[in-house]
Amino acid sequence: MMSSMFCLALLILLAEASQVDKDFSYIDAHQDTYIQRMKDWVHTESDSSNPDKRQLVIEMMNVAKKLIEDIGGSVEVAELGDQLFPNGQIIPIPPVVLATFGSDPEKPTVCFYGHLDVQPAKKADGWDTEPFTLVVKNGNLYGRGTDDDKGHVLAFLNAIEAVQVNGLPLNVKIILEGMEEVGSDGIEELIKQKKNTFFADVDYYVIADTPWVSKTPGITYGARGDCYFFLEVKGPQRDLHSGVYGGSVYEPMSDLIYLLDTLVDSSGCILISGIYDAVAPVTEKEKKLYENITFNLEEFKAEVGTTKLLYDTKEDVLMHRWRYPSLSIHGIEGAFSGSGTKTVIPSKVIGKFSMRQVPNMEPSVVEKQVSDYLMKKFAERNSPNKLNVTMVIGAKPWISSLEEPQYLAAQKAVRKAFGVEADMVRTGGTVPIARTFQDVTGKHVMLLGIGGPDDALHGQNEKLSRYNYIGGTKLYAAFIHEFSKL
Amino acid sequence: MMSSMFCLALLILLAEASQVDKDFSYIDAHQDTYIQRMKDWVHTESDSSNPDKRQLVIEMMNVAKKLIEDIGGSVEVAELGDQLFPNGQIIPIPPVVLATFGSDPEKPTVCFYGHLDVQPAKKADGWDTEPFTLVVKNGNLYGRGTDDDKGHVLAFLNAIEAVQVNGLPLNVKIILEGMEEVGSDGIEELIKQKKNTFFADVDYYVIADTPWVSKTPGITYGARGDCYFFLEVKGPQRDLHSGVYGGSVYEPMSDLIYLLDTLVDSSGCILISGIYDAVAPVTEKEKKLYENITFNLEEFKAEVGTTKLLYDTKEDVLMHRWRYPSLSIHGIEGAFSGSGTKTVIPSKVIGKFSMRQVPNMEPSVVEKQVSDYLMKKFAERNSPNKLNVTMVIGAKPWISSLEEPQYLAAQKAVRKAFGVEADMVRTGGTVPIARTFQDVTGKHVMLLGIGGPDDALHGQNEKLSRYNYIGGTKLYAAFIHEFSKL
Repeated sequence: MMSSMFCLALLILLAEASQVDKDFSYIDAHQDTYIQRMKDWVHTESDSSNPDKRQLVIEMMNVAKKLIEDIGGSVEVAELGDQLFPNGQIIPIPPVVLATFGSDPEKPTVCFYGHLDVQPAKKADGWDTEPFTLVVKNGNLYGRGTDDDKGHVLAFLNAIEAVQVNGLPLNVKIILEGMEEVGSDGIEELIKQKKNTFFADVDYYVIADTPWVSKTPGITYGARGDCYFFLEVKGPQRDLHSGVYGGSVYEPMSDLIYLLDTLVDSSGCILISGIYDAVAPVTEKEKKLYENITFNLEEFKAEVGTTKLLYDTKEDVLMHRWRYPSLSIHGIEGAFSGSGTKTVIPSKVIGKFSMRQVPNMEPSVVEKQVSDYLMKKFAERNSPNKLNVTMVIGAKPWISSLEEPQYLAAQKAVRKAFGVEADMVRTGGTVPIARTFQDVTGKHVMLLGIGGPDDALHGQNEKLSRYNYIGGTKLYAAFIHEFSKL
Repeated sequence: MMSSMFCLALLILLAEASQVDKDFSYIDAHQDTYIQRMKDWVHTESDSSNPDKRQLVIEMMNVAKKLIEDIGGSVEVAELGDQLFPNGQIIPIPPVVLATFGSDPEKPTVCFYGHLDVQPAKKADGWDTEPFTLVVKNGNLYGRGTDDDKGHVLAFLNAIEAVQVNGLPLNVKIILEGMEEVGSDGIEELIKQKKNTFFADVDYYVIADTPWVSKTPGITYGARGDCYFFLEVKGPQRDLHSGVYGGSVYEPMSDLIYLLDTLVDSSGCILISGIYDAVAPVTEKEKKLYENITFNLEEFKAEVGTTKLLYDTKEDVLMHRWRYPSLSIHGIEGAFSGSGTKTVIPSKVIGKFSMRQVPNMEPSVVEKQVSDYLMKKFAERNSPNKLNVTMVIGAKPWISSLEEPQYLAAQKAVRKAFGVEADMVRTGGTVPIARTFQDVTGKHVMLLGIGGPDDALHGQNEKLSRYNYIGGTKLYAAFIHEFSKL
């Protein structure tokens, strides 16, 4: 009896092994199709931060809808209304694509999330090639969005297509949005609305939007939030000639530079009063987790292109990227930003900075801390110019328990697809949707990404390696099988 | 005998008066032609700061050459070779137009100077209309360059054309350049080269490139210089995602903001060590000059659009605009400057600021003071990023004696054209060519401009009023007559 049960288990195991292997063969045989899809998707400049490109984001959502339908999914499109832009412009929010593959009530349901909007990019920023034309070179796929996040979305769609050949062992739902890079307007409301309909039978959420920290695949259990601020200083009624007026007027740029310089010191420490009060203390268990992560400081320095980091140990560097807040000044709108020289006193300038959020910081509290601090600093300066502090994005941080079974399924899938043990990591980037799914549905969330650590997200020459793209497609396929056994 | 001499003098006086009046009638009758010329000239976007527009500056020089030839002048064109742009690009310097009207050795020779390049402008900067399309509205001519400096050049060309109808009472030479807004590359060399040829017989130089300080016409005897600096901070090898890297790297923007904030305090005082050492002390005679100037502080505040200036008295405000140095921060190249949000850590940023120069400051000394100061401040910060301080423009200040006869001729011409006494003023702007003419040729220089105080040079909605344009044309005509009597 024991012997026959053992044989049956072995047979099931072999059958499964064989099915995953078949899926992998299918994936290998369809690499050219997957690259062509990437080429088509990168070509659409779906930059959600620029009102002038909004129509292209909407077009991108439609392109994805068509691919899903072509590979057998059913799609419903959710409209989210309009967005009031800071300049007063009203433009439509791109629709959200909700897709379903299978609806067998006997099977578990996993929901994949991805986004199709991208950060701004132009060749003049310092790209080697046109950002919206895919270039395949030295085993890498270069182009804006290849990693963040079109590559991830294509990888799980490719995986679903491959697994379907032999039958999906579970139900898959998909949600794709087009506003992730600017704060996911309207998504939280949509998930609340559809909590008891589209999302009712979802057991677990998988966010496909995170890079690994080394060549070792990483499974991500935490992400920082982000509070993005506009710091507007308004003075003269128009720009002035610096020769004719310089020396007589209070210049908005001087005020702004002063204010920006009060935000963070040379060692990266944020100077805004009370900002560290809510940061969760580091536990002993947490410290051990960091010690086990594959991460080489010298390689990281080389990849960044610097001789010195703000911290000297692997643990400190990773903790300050993942579980402490950080503040970055991104730029100034309204000042002279071209090449060459211009002798102008700009009349209205908007400083832009953002602060990454960690548990247990609350954006509403941070908004008040930042505003109070800057208003106080500005008042001390006694300038006749006008200051306006606005928080335009307030995305919360997210963290999950590692004990959830889907983390185990993902670890097994990494072993199957890449033949190594996964790193259990966090990301310093912001994945507000993770926090939203967890808060609204009460279900558990995991971030399973396929990007490399040097993919230059948001930077010049963004890429995804072919190894990660194809291997990542296999990872999602293997995860579907492992998940179905939970 | 006395009686007949008196009659002769009276007749000569009447004949002259009548000739000026005839010129004025001619000018009044040709206003439409002058407006059409302005329209044509504004239309050419001759922005010298932008390498991509260089061909348009060259085209503008050719348009001026043609007009001069059409109204009877002879032209020689001087090529100045190439310019090495900060980004490594090599582009041609626009040619200089040298023109001659008359060469009677018995007559005095005056040389007018003007420039045909303009500051950058685009409607998105906040213009009400397209900057390179002339708009005539409420008695004003709106468009980039209407005042600075195409309007001035057209006014003296119109004047020469008008006076010629009854015969030029002197010889006129003209020099027009296309690089004034970016530091007049090559002009000093050209004047040195042609000191004993084209410029040999010039008795006085008149620079037509300054605004008045009120509705009262001003004659300008001093101009500030300008030292323009690029402050480059270079860090990571490419732009980084502020979520993924924020908290671990030394951000070039933080370094740059810190450095820019060490330059000037909230009361406009420049903090660079030693910078005030060379500034000439104020004399009692100079104080009296300032007391006589027509200048209303409340009107100036209203024109700027502010409730408070850096100083409270007319004399302090004017002195800090004209005879003390000032420092303005113009902007940052390489950071995010668009609308919307971008969560980037820029890898290389270039802060741009300039300092207006007054007697007896020397650009070469200022360059060292600025560089030493910033290098020291940066070293204290202990950042691994690289700092590069470059002075890209080093234009000297200029001042003349008010005792020179051409100042008297100009005062008479103001009376004739506008019916009021002229203000004797300085300008806070930079007219490097004035200093160059004085140093190289040893001859005296005067600035006789026709722009209004609210013409928004270098700003949005630059304009020249029709009153100033036509009245200014008459002023130059009257000056030619008065000058011929010296």
